[in-house]
Amino acid sequence: MKFRKVDGGVTAAKGFTAAGLYCGIKKKEKKDLALIYSEVPAVAAGMFTQNRFQAAPVKITRDHLADYNAQAIICNSGNANACSGEQGAQDAHRMTELTAQLLQLQPEDVVVASTGVIGQNLPMDKIEAGIRSIAGQLTPTGGQDAAEAIITTDLTLKVTAYSLEIGGKTVTVGGMAKGSGMIHPNMATMLGFVTTDCAISGKLLQQALAYTVERSYNLITVDGDTSTNDMVVVLANGVADNTSITAESEDYHRFLMLLQRVNSELSQKIVRDGEGATKFLELTVKHAASFADGKTLARGVLSSNLVKTAFFGEDANWGRIVSAMGQTDVEFYPERVDVFLGDLQVTAYGQGLVFDEEKAKEILQQKDIRITVDLHMGDENVTAWGADLSYDYVKINASYRS
Amino acid sequence: MKFRKVDGGVTAAKGFTAAGLYCGIKKKEKKDLALIYSEVPAVAAGMFTQNRFQAAPVKITRDHLADYNAQAIICNSGNANACSGEQGAQDAHRMTELTAQLLQLQPEDVVVASTGVIGQNLPMDKIEAGIRSIAGQLTPTGGQDAAEAIITTDLTLKVTAYSLEIGGKTVTVGGMAKGSGMIHPNMATMLGFVTTDCAISGKLLQQALAYTVERSYNLITVDGDTSTNDMVVVLANGVADNTSITAESEDYHRFLMLLQRVNSELSQKIVRDGEGATKFLELTVKHAASFADGKTLARGVLSSNLVKTAFFGEDANWGRIVSAMGQTDVEFYPERVDVFLGDLQVTAYGQGLVFDEEKAKEILQQKDIRITVDLHMGDENVTAWGADLSYDYVKINASYRS
Repeated sequence: MKFRKVDGGVTAAKGFTAAGLYCGIKKKEKKDLALIYSEVPAVAAGMFTQNRFQAAPVKITRDHLADYNAQAIICNSGNANACSGEQGAQDAHRMTELTAQLLQLQPEDVVVASTGVIGQNLPMDKIEAGIRSIAGQLTPTGGQDAAEAIITTDLTLKVTAYSLEIGGKTVTVGGMAKGSGMIHPNMATMLGFVTTDCAISGKLLQQALAYTVERSYNLITVDGDTSTNDMVVVLANGVADNTSITAESEDYHRFLMLLQRVNSELSQKIVRDGEGATKFLELTVKHAASFADGKTLARGVLSSNLVKTAFFGEDANWGRIVSAMGQTDVEFYPERVDVFLGDLQVTAYGQGLVFDEEKAKEILQQKDIRITVDLHMGDENVTAWGADLSYDYVKINASYRS
Repeated sequence: MKFRKVDGGVTAAKGFTAAGLYCGIKKKEKKDLALIYSEVPAVAAGMFTQNRFQAAPVKITRDHLADYNAQAIICNSGNANACSGEQGAQDAHRMTELTAQLLQLQPEDVVVASTGVIGQNLPMDKIEAGIRSIAGQLTPTGGQDAAEAIITTDLTLKVTAYSLEIGGKTVTVGGMAKGSGMIHPNMATMLGFVTTDCAISGKLLQQALAYTVERSYNLITVDGDTSTNDMVVVLANGVADNTSITAESEDYHRFLMLLQRVNSELSQKIVRDGEGATKFLELTVKHAASFADGKTLARGVLSSNLVKTAFFGEDANWGRIVSAMGQTDVEFYPERVDVFLGDLQVTAYGQGLVFDEEKAKEILQQKDIRITVDLHMGDENVTAWGADLSYDYVKINASYRS
């Protein structure tokens, strides 16, 4: 499939505008309020954190997307509005109401998200003033500002967009994400906002989102912790004018691959910006009996502190990889397992091989490392992404809240 | 119940002898072979790693304990005999055969265990010479030497023993354990060997072991990784001459509490010697709906890298605690959750309280820190133990294998 990389992030697709500004939540003058707007009504879909402690905006956005319709996304950084009680719920509602009023929408068509410190109430005077201001600043090139306004301790912006011909029309999917950082109080939030001008039904959009999130964001791990605020939302406004996708057709498949491309890239950008990460680990489980098995094994290995520290130390420690696999609940045959670092096989039939230590060293000194585990069982190949565990990870996360 | 602390570790109970020596597996001249022997036939029970990659000695010992009988334990350190193929299985068998021959037992009554480097075959010439030598060195005060011979990178010995009156007789349970270390190749092994002169049936001994392991070793976590070689074995030789425990009587209950005391203490010693640990964390989940729920929550919190680094940094970061709870699959009500650091309440009804930061700092600067999470749901209280995540953890585990 011929994907074309395009600029603009969440404003790359036709009919979307965005803005980002500083409204006073963060201590330093860094952008902390983002708005994304579709000029025409859009269908929408969302995926949310599985954490039992769910922040107020997560609950409200979930309700708002029940009808698969949304036209705007308002998001602040610097305060997660999580563990914030009844006041927190009122504040999140107020953000959708004010945004809707200024854009002449229904509050139910506004998505709200927050990221940052947990356990504190939002400074609503500043946020209300910010919303009044940002509603007048929407532009078709505002994707960059919006991306800046949702980050917290991220070191890099996570923005991407691709186009693909679908049903004879150019369809674009663009997105932005944030994630990896926390330092101040509490927890990393992973946010992803994706826009597309594809014409597609809400139900199929949700299905496509669920499929691709499972194969992108849900296959990355930085430290194994799931935030209270995680959220990925996609808006599809149909401005590309393709024949609307309403069944699992060839067009649907093409859209799925396009959305997958964007979500894969955004999620990998999060791992590369993982706290303290010095290595980008791409682990493929080959010949798993099922996708679920492959996913559990791949994430299990990439979540193991012993595996992560070994890669930080550039140590060809395959024993930790097989042990991390063995402690998952996945059924497989240890005596069939092959392990490769890059192209170098280090384990055959579950036993260590005598391998070229110089070659291993060369592979492990790279910033990007491919690991392959072959189960020789079924037909599923699953790739997941993770980071190593470094002194800096400990340093960043041991910091005092103040 | 009136427990009396006694000396001697695995040779504290009557009728047990032990020895430990250097046979040449380790590079430095440190003891690497241990033998424990009961002068009379004993019943025995074991609990083993759940890791799918199981070392050869784990498989063989499991078979040997199927009849609840054993009279000796042979254990080497420095090489785990894991991922070692058919040769590994033959070598583990040979260790039991030679030990049995020298002690005039059946091979099926010998327990075999190994810990250390994985993926290499044992140096059987050295081990065979070592077994021939150690069989002549058994003494009733050999518990200390045996404890030294099973450690790898442990910084401390883990030995304890207690006595209690049961059925009018003094019954002693003594044990030794190893765990926390790895540095050289591959993975930490947790080994626990417990001896008692209690007269008890094999089935009840297994039941008591399972119950206490679930409430001791299975409630500790250092880094979330489960070794291929973990094993806890208890031998009971009946020399205390109490009326044999064959039902869930008052005597059984007293023995259970005695065994629990020894296993709790051994397991906590492992956490205190956790790699790079600077803090000993004791977390109690109060009013859980079930033991399983409490255990999952407690271990979930203590396994979170974000929680562990926060304690290393002496940061009163309760948000990470509730978030770690929320990402388990346990059902509970976030809006009921109270969190305490020591006696200081920091969270009420799932929301943050304004608390005395000076008091919090004082609590967090201690080496031992108590954390309490109250779910306000059921009647189960579960306590688990863990360690923080420090620079030294990363340093130790990032080391090259050579």
